[in-house]
Amino acid sequence: MSGDAAKTDALARLNVLRRSIDNIDAALVHLLAERFRVTSEVGFLKAAHDLPSGDPTREAQVVGRVRDMATNAGLDPDVAQKISEMLIAEAIANHDRIKARRDADA
Amino acid sequence: MSGDAAKTDALARLNVLRRSIDNIDAALVHLLAERFRVTSEVGFLKAAHDLPSGDPTREAQVVGRVRDMATNAGLDPDVAQKISEMLIAEAIANHDRIKARRDADA
Repeated sequence: MSGDAAKTDALARLNVLRRSIDNIDAALVHLLAERFRVTSEVGFLKAAHDLPSGDPTREAQVVGRVRDMATNAGLDPDVAQKISEMLIAEAIANHDRIKARRDADA
Repeated sequence: MSGDAAKTDALARLNVLRRSIDNIDAALVHLLAERFRVTSEVGFLKAAHDLPSGDPTREAQVVGRVRDMATNAGLDPDVAQKISEMLIAEAIANHDRIKARRDADA
């Protein structure tokens, strides 16, 4: 194969891989939307029962479990932890917003 | 329902929601592992054909698409963008590592 043909071939293969990345991203977005739906339910429950927004014991369990699953799945556990901690921080910030709205309505 | 009974009920409901979060996290970890498997393939392809690790046009398309899907799915597009940009940065860092190993072996 000439250099040009090899490059054309590589770019075609790159497009195939990018289609897979796009499909995975679509699945990720919808799972993330669902995760935030569930954590919003948690937020309403916590606000209604005056439970604290954060729960360090539970958060450590979530992150530990995510690291273990990542290792088993061949994903860098540090990358998985970074994403997990970001999701937890966003969920807690959302809990605080739900509680603040509830307190303002009370 | 007494205050204690209501609290017990709330904690039971919290546990149910947390089981859902754990299931969603398991799915997320495995999808993320798969995303990094595909982006590693991209990295090998780019290294083999001396293509640059980053591609700002493609990256902007990925983030824009993720924002649109997030909006449609009821997920905060800024949160989705933050995660998407983190995944892209990790993928590019990995492309650079693959290229550095390839150059060292050459």
